[in-house]
Amino acid sequence: MEHEAKQVDSRTRLLNATLQIVRAKGYTATRIEDICAEAGVTKGSFFHHFKSKDELALAAVAHWDALTGGLFASAEYHRIEDPLERLLAYIDFRRELLQGELPDYTCFAGMITQEAYLTRPDLVAACERSITAHARTLEADIEAAIEQSGNRADWTAASVALHTQAVIQGAFILAKATGDTAIAADSIAHLRRYIELLFSPR
Amino acid sequence: MEHEAKQVDSRTRLLNATLQIVRAKGYTATRIEDICAEAGVTKGSFFHHFKSKDELALAAVAHWDALTGGLFASAEYHRIEDPLERLLAYIDFRRELLQGELPDYTCFAGMITQEAYLTRPDLVAACERSITAHARTLEADIEAAIEQSGNRADWTAASVALHTQAVIQGAFILAKATGDTAIAADSIAHLRRYIELLFSPR
Repeated sequence: MEHEAKQVDSRTRLLNATLQIVRAKGYTATRIEDICAEAGVTKGSFFHHFKSKDELALAAVAHWDALTGGLFASAEYHRIEDPLERLLAYIDFRRELLQGELPDYTCFAGMITQEAYLTRPDLVAACERSITAHARTLEADIEAAIEQSGNRADWTAASVALHTQAVIQGAFILAKATGDTAIAADSIAHLRRYIELLFSPR
Repeated sequence: MEHEAKQVDSRTRLLNATLQIVRAKGYTATRIEDICAEAGVTKGSFFHHFKSKDELALAAVAHWDALTGGLFASAEYHRIEDPLERLLAYIDFRRELLQGELPDYTCFAGMITQEAYLTRPDLVAACERSITAHARTLEADIEAAIEQSGNRADWTAASVALHTQAVIQGAFILAKATGDTAIAADSIAHLRRYIELLFSPR
């Protein structure tokens, strides 16, 4: 039993190290050696858990989904009753997550997508599912906000949900370019203002 | 003279090949051999022009600036007299540029920034200047649109200008994730609607 627990632990350490290192230097630049060193795990142990870097990366996308899925599912914004206010609180939560260093708050799936969209289609398909599944968690609130506002929308809830993710991904790029988290916060503030304007009475 | 003309030509071919290959598979994955093959230039000729991949990449950022700078400077939208309409026409132009394959229309500077922000600070500083200098070309129009609308703005023209670039960069990521250009066009349409709403009479 103790041996089993330790095995689980080294696997999780490898997955956490993958999230951290890929977010810091990109997928292609990340070597198995870097991940083992960061995780404090031997290469032998690595290959006990994963056949290759690609297999590790696929498992890391699932790990990323589990971590971020849990983070968002348990976040306070769900408690707000009004759907528009709940959506705005989600956006505020995204801004609050801009804490610490860039590799701590930027998107693992977005990093891999940018670099590997042509060269690793299977891996990027998993990243795509991660991003679009997260976007879908916003759709019901957007639908309810449309109904509540009574505004005629010539756009869909799905399209607004995806747009929120585009803004957040682009905000990360601007923060990486400038080293300035405030630039990302500014873009998320523009996104919040857009949502408010979309649903304000005409 | 003929020899000189040919030298200029092989340098430009190497720079064009760099833009294309980096946009397709990322900066780290791009090898000097790939660039030489794409450009139809020998490795000897490569090292006649550039000492290293990093030196090539810096020159390629300058080349990217010259190409995109020329494209935007000569674009039709500048002819429009009303500043808000001119800004909206710029956004329409960005949507029209979503043509062909992903490596043809996505951003060289954004790709390098995403991957290399921690590992190649000099190169990413050049990319940052490229992105922010382009954003600055929009500021005067945004200022004029603010004045014209008479709306009190609790945001700056500079911040809106950077936000346009965040949306475009994020739209590229969503298009890469899904392989669907229409998703990028949708986000740019949301950006257009945001600008319209920002400047519509209250």
